[in-house]
Amino acid sequence: MTTSRLIGRLIESLRCLPGVGPKSAQRMAFHLLEHDRDAGRQLAAALLEAMERVGNCTRCRTLSEAPVCALCASDRRDPGLLCVVETPADVQALEQSTGYSGCYFVLMGHLSPLDGIGPEQLGLGQLEARLASGEVRELILATNPTVEGEATAHFISELARARRVRSTRIAHGVPMGGELEYIDSGTLSHAFAGRQEM
Amino acid sequence: MTTSRLIGRLIESLRCLPGVGPKSAQRMAFHLLEHDRDAGRQLAAALLEAMERVGNCTRCRTLSEAPVCALCASDRRDPGLLCVVETPADVQALEQSTGYSGCYFVLMGHLSPLDGIGPEQLGLGQLEARLASGEVRELILATNPTVEGEATAHFISELARARRVRSTRIAHGVPMGGELEYIDSGTLSHAFAGRQEM
Repeated sequence: MTTSRLIGRLIESLRCLPGVGPKSAQRMAFHLLEHDRDAGRQLAAALLEAMERVGNCTRCRTLSEAPVCALCASDRRDPGLLCVVETPADVQALEQSTGYSGCYFVLMGHLSPLDGIGPEQLGLGQLEARLASGEVRELILATNPTVEGEATAHFISELARARRVRSTRIAHGVPMGGELEYIDSGTLSHAFAGRQEM
Repeated sequence: MTTSRLIGRLIESLRCLPGVGPKSAQRMAFHLLEHDRDAGRQLAAALLEAMERVGNCTRCRTLSEAPVCALCASDRRDPGLLCVVETPADVQALEQSTGYSGCYFVLMGHLSPLDGIGPEQLGLGQLEARLASGEVRELILATNPTVEGEATAHFISELARARRVRSTRIAHGVPMGGELEYIDSGTLSHAFAGRQEM
């Protein structure tokens, strides 16, 4: 417990960050106050602006401050290839690891009926409309290799089959039970290149 | 690299926090944006207010939003005991671990001539004035058990000797080369209780 109300509030607020416990939060607060107030002010401004202005891309659902994100708006990306991932972090991981030049569709989660997350919450109606438009040649399912990710991939592959769109799944080789975001580039690149018919 | 300017700026800004690398910063940014925007806004407000309004206590130099901090302003603390520490985090650690009921003097660093940190930067003039006032019976030197901390303690003990004030050093038992802030309560409490004439 600090004796200053403002410092106590700052330490408490820092604990909203994932992986930050009471000791780390205290260290962060004192570091900023003692050594780097400008960085603290800049972080506050960056947080505020991002929280207020970042929404979702109307086309792929990823986080974006523009109505259509840079990847969807680019004319260098092949709209015939559509890669389905769970989170914006997965888009980053794939962009950094693979030479993929198609588009993405970001579910912002996975099917999880017990948490009330069904096809509607994942924007699958929007995905179906895109499959129905006939512009997609291949749907690449790159959800996490977890039970929920596999189930979500299976569900979406059925949607693709109904629309006669070819769907593929990134290759196994990625360790089961892991999270896409944290797999090393080599493994991820290999798995992406070796994707199989689903 | 994210394709969104605002998210990229947020990730970059989060890296000002100690112990936060590019992967953690990205995870923090996406966590707040996807799951907890209110917490992000509250963190921004807490940061801004703390960066603008927290200054230093005019009496003990610790971080404080009031001109005199709560510990210095308290009439339950014995002004005859004065404990010298390097940082506000050390005050927290001692308050949590020991039954100490005296006052503190926070150097906000240690002597480090190569970095241009001498007696003036540590407010030792202010400390000497307090020793000269005659109110201090015992000066407890609780700087870190590092080379710089020991040198600082030695320097200050000479000031105390010149003013004929008894000075003590927290007991060894705290591991050398460590940082006070991270030592377990038991060891710290033991070392504090077993302080020796210096």
